[in-house]
Amino acid sequence: MSRFPAMTFQLPDWIDRLIDPERAYPGVDEQMDLVIDLSRRNVELGTGGPFGAAVFEQESGRLVAPGVNLVVPSSSAIAHAEIVAVALAGVATGGFDLGRPDLPPTVLVASTEPCAMCFGAVPWSGVSGLICGARDEDARAVGFDEGPKVADWETALVERGIRVTRDVHRPEARAVLEAYATSGGTIYNGRRVG
Amino acid sequence: MSRFPAMTFQLPDWIDRLIDPERAYPGVDEQMDLVIDLSRRNVELGTGGPFGAAVFEQESGRLVAPGVNLVVPSSSAIAHAEIVAVALAGVATGGFDLGRPDLPPTVLVASTEPCAMCFGAVPWSGVSGLICGARDEDARAVGFDEGPKVADWETALVERGIRVTRDVHRPEARAVLEAYATSGGTIYNGRRVG
Repeated sequence: MSRFPAMTFQLPDWIDRLIDPERAYPGVDEQMDLVIDLSRRNVELGTGGPFGAAVFEQESGRLVAPGVNLVVPSSSAIAHAEIVAVALAGVATGGFDLGRPDLPPTVLVASTEPCAMCFGAVPWSGVSGLICGARDEDARAVGFDEGPKVADWETALVERGIRVTRDVHRPEARAVLEAYATSGGTIYNGRRVG
Repeated sequence: MSRFPAMTFQLPDWIDRLIDPERAYPGVDEQMDLVIDLSRRNVELGTGGPFGAAVFEQESGRLVAPGVNLVVPSSSAIAHAEIVAVALAGVATGGFDLGRPDLPPTVLVASTEPCAMCFGAVPWSGVSGLICGARDEDARAVGFDEGPKVADWETALVERGIRVTRDVHRPEARAVLEAYATSGGTIYNGRRVG
């Protein structure tokens, strides 16, 4: 153990009350419902920004790991919901590669399309698919900066064998972003748009 | 505390023996020397991949936080050296934004130019500059995948007010990558090149 301070991604305890450990989430509708619920409650309960994500087993719909934006509580600019979900899914499965042969294929479900950093994390995670709710332009519209992403980020993932599904429950996902902005929530990126 | 497992970035304890807490690192040469040393020892001591990084105060050269690649020991695909350094620097300074007005300007020094994910993390970190050793093509040459980055990633950072300095001790930094590959070290990205 080094004397340098460690950094821990620790989910807030309301997630335990929200999620029934016995339940599976078969199909993108149920998966996205959960992820949007995570994004909404993360704001309502004051534990971070309006973004949720989760890793699920593709076939069974079993939840491998949820994630919420923890930028403020973890004091870490990199603690976006997708990063948290991928990191915790690695711990839950006992290895960094969610695509390793002894594991069932997994998908990353995100309440908003990824920023430049989270986009870059998707190929490293080993997931087979990325499923998104709100569009990145919806995040930009309320003041979040999505960063310098390659213009055709969807194709870049598909070319790496990662299926991309967009606009799943987009209105509901976008509504959480808009409610956050309207209520004066902190736009916490290091650099603001405009 | 949620029942879901947490994920912790914990530096290996050899870093305490390497780094004198009283010492500052004024100037990019001393800073890069340390970061390359981190990358080399991380391999030699078996604690992760051949990548080191650190956040320094720009003027004083004070070390804010070091980072090494912890992908394998942390079971997290996202635990690249730059991500670890930025996360620990946030904890060390008590906030997610290293660019906040009450802190001195900081730089992120990396032994190799960032992958797509780490590139995307730089604007969120709040650092004023990025200083790199080996080129991304040096990492690619030994089998690491740098991911789908915007073609002119340097300009994209400069346009956001982040100064970029490349090729600092590039031969020494590249030599660590080459030694790692020659010795048969795991190329641990979720997706391999080629």
